[in-house]
Amino acid sequence: MKKLFAFVIALAVLASCNIPESTSADYRIENGKIICNVPDKEPGQQDMLNFAAPGIETVRVGFVGLGMRGPGAVYRFTYIPDVEVVALCDVEPDRVSDAQKILRDRGLPEAASYSGYDGWKALCERSDIDLIYICTDWVNHEPIARYAMECGKHTAIEVPAAMNLKEIWSLINTSEKTRKHCIMLENCVYDFFELTTLNMARQGVFGEVMHVEGSYIHNLEAFWNEYWHNWRLDYNSKHRGDVYPTHGLGPACQLLDIHRSDMLKTLVAMDTKSSRGQDFQNGDHTMMMISTAKGKTIHIQHDVTSPRPYSRMYQLTGTKGFANKYPVEGYALDTEQLSKDVRGTYDRLTSHSFVPAEVKKTLMEKYKHPFTKELETMAKKVGGHGGMDFIMDYRLVYCLHNGLPLDMDVYDMAEWCCVGELSSLSIENGNIPVEIPDFTRGAAGL
Amino acid sequence: MKKLFAFVIALAVLASCNIPESTSADYRIENGKIICNVPDKEPGQQDMLNFAAPGIETVRVGFVGLGMRGPGAVYRFTYIPDVEVVALCDVEPDRVSDAQKILRDRGLPEAASYSGYDGWKALCERSDIDLIYICTDWVNHEPIARYAMECGKHTAIEVPAAMNLKEIWSLINTSEKTRKHCIMLENCVYDFFELTTLNMARQGVFGEVMHVEGSYIHNLEAFWNEYWHNWRLDYNSKHRGDVYPTHGLGPACQLLDIHRSDMLKTLVAMDTKSSRGQDFQNGDHTMMMISTAKGKTIHIQHDVTSPRPYSRMYQLTGTKGFANKYPVEGYALDTEQLSKDVRGTYDRLTSHSFVPAEVKKTLMEKYKHPFTKELETMAKKVGGHGGMDFIMDYRLVYCLHNGLPLDMDVYDMAEWCCVGELSSLSIENGNIPVEIPDFTRGAAGL
Repeated sequence: MKKLFAFVIALAVLASCNIPESTSADYRIENGKIICNVPDKEPGQQDMLNFAAPGIETVRVGFVGLGMRGPGAVYRFTYIPDVEVVALCDVEPDRVSDAQKILRDRGLPEAASYSGYDGWKALCERSDIDLIYICTDWVNHEPIARYAMECGKHTAIEVPAAMNLKEIWSLINTSEKTRKHCIMLENCVYDFFELTTLNMARQGVFGEVMHVEGSYIHNLEAFWNEYWHNWRLDYNSKHRGDVYPTHGLGPACQLLDIHRSDMLKTLVAMDTKSSRGQDFQNGDHTMMMISTAKGKTIHIQHDVTSPRPYSRMYQLTGTKGFANKYPVEGYALDTEQLSKDVRGTYDRLTSHSFVPAEVKKTLMEKYKHPFTKELETMAKKVGGHGGMDFIMDYRLVYCLHNGLPLDMDVYDMAEWCCVGELSSLSIENGNIPVEIPDFTRGAAGL
Repeated sequence: MKKLFAFVIALAVLASCNIPESTSADYRIENGKIICNVPDKEPGQQDMLNFAAPGIETVRVGFVGLGMRGPGAVYRFTYIPDVEVVALCDVEPDRVSDAQKILRDRGLPEAASYSGYDGWKALCERSDIDLIYICTDWVNHEPIARYAMECGKHTAIEVPAAMNLKEIWSLINTSEKTRKHCIMLENCVYDFFELTTLNMARQGVFGEVMHVEGSYIHNLEAFWNEYWHNWRLDYNSKHRGDVYPTHGLGPACQLLDIHRSDMLKTLVAMDTKSSRGQDFQNGDHTMMMISTAKGKTIHIQHDVTSPRPYSRMYQLTGTKGFANKYPVEGYALDTEQLSKDVRGTYDRLTSHSFVPAEVKKTLMEKYKHPFTKELETMAKKVGGHGGMDFIMDYRLVYCLHNGLPLDMDVYDMAEWCCVGELSSLSIENGNIPVEIPDFTRGAAGL
């Protein structure tokens, strides 16, 4: 009790002065550009591109972190075939009990319980677990995932999986050394409009994809106190840059096929001041522009402070068409593409307008993603942000069960997370460009 | 005829190889940042802040450039009181005749006719003109406006009034020396949603304005051949950067009260490749981020190539509210502000949603801008992009007639235009930051 009290006091003191946390990044500035030094691989260490582990008959899962995202994940897993929930862990024992109730309510046996500050270690050390599913606060993602892989477990980590380059390289190196999956639980790439649009993009409906946008714009004013000991606001108070970039950047990178046929190249970032005062590090509004090796661009925004409607922007501009999700979903296609997709009645349509509702419906049916075709009904029943969380979890288990590469690999995690610290470096150095490292260290061959 | 033939051939040859035009900018790179050298004022040369010329009983106007924007302007001026259309000029004599017909149809006497490549010179030299209204191709804006001011005329110039820093400083210096108005005809600041939102911003409805966005996204594919000898596509083929920034940046700068209470500070830009091939300089999609001295940010985009619906984005994020124009107009306000503006029925509204249509209507009535209140009916009748062009012209004449400062000054012109060349400099130098000059040269005192 004394220990906890002292800890809370320490947190409160830190929060009140919002001292910026020094960067972990190992970088130099050359010709006005930030270049991050890339650590060497150890001898024998191999890349994880297209990595598939042997298929697992029953995927035995341990959950760590049962605060905000964990309980929903436990619930969803009870609907997925070939799964056994083996262990549950949280710093607070009450939360573990609450999660056991989810299992009981679904007619399942209780799992092993772990709690306290290092309960996760004992959980990771169990020999009867295949996958550790991590939903703790951000700063504990990397230590737990690293240890889990070292204990021979695949890892799935909530967003952002890693907060800076040091953590990113640690996860990549550990995954490459242990030959264990390290997937980030970026759920937004599984949302219905995003999946359909990705499928359309891959089938060439938008022509060559030139520019994509994404964001996390979500006024968290009413939600800050839901985070354990105020950890999220506390983190934002100490860090500039886009500290929560993956919901916007993940779908954007998939549309551009990053590290499959193109690479992230240069990033520049800018932010507003904070309306919380000079000591608060994170600006109200943060922006990034990113270019790729093939001359495409990405625009990303972060705003968790301003009073405005939720938006992940999600926008695609191609040489034949356009897609936009917020504030209203819409597609626009050039006349050639329109004549392929919706002949006859719509001959007068042009790309100067969004297609009418019935044409949008036709397109979305025609290009429905295979995941959605198979899982839509179940996903909408089980839920989790409208169903996308269920599709994500289902796919993870499906791939592990069938010995397939996962939908997202450790380099996706790295690319989608790295812009947090890189945007902060750009801003702190006067909005100068940052070269984005090749996290595959040449293995992608791009 | 021979001369014209040779000129057209020369244009065709230039267009076919799209040689990038070298920058006029006088700049240096210091610590990875582009700094533009600011020319000295000549002795006695005074700033034009809040400048008002003596009132003019009847504003006598000469129009130069009667291709795309000119004829509409002539038509609108026939509806404005205290105006006399004195002279009309275009390189093509046919266009002058067509514009005379506009005057005849409105029961007005014909104006003096000028044509050919230097017809505008004789027009500028007339002693019976107060205002030269310039609607030529972009590259002729500055030479004509400069000469007009040197001939003692006020000048109003279509967008962008100046294409690079050399032209911008020329117009500023000429205006400061001759004490003649030099206003850029940025019509988008007079659109109804923009005027209302500006009025709301000035009355504090959005709290402190932190971030604003604007763009020119307009697929010109079907329109390129309407520009005389293909001048616009030809210009784009030779220039990278946001060559047409003012429709987005003008309204954005007004919302941030630029060079009245804040200053533009740093710009970074990025573009995609061109889908027209390697030799075509202008990227399909170009973006900029701009910061201000007071820690606000601006995001601007340019895309005249991609098949997507028209958008000027026009978005405002403040500490108490949010406004967005494209693809759908909407406002969101925090609960405190909502309770001030719409008491009672709407107590459950929050900023997580756009206000319902009836609340938007209430807000737009309550905060209708004085210009709109007075001119809406007439503006919608006369038209010009739905009425905003009429309000712009009316206000220009009104201020000249009454001896008032104009709504936009020569420094607005400079700020809104400079980002064309500055974005190109940022991009060509690897997306490095550019320091935006203080075009008031200290006079704004900010």
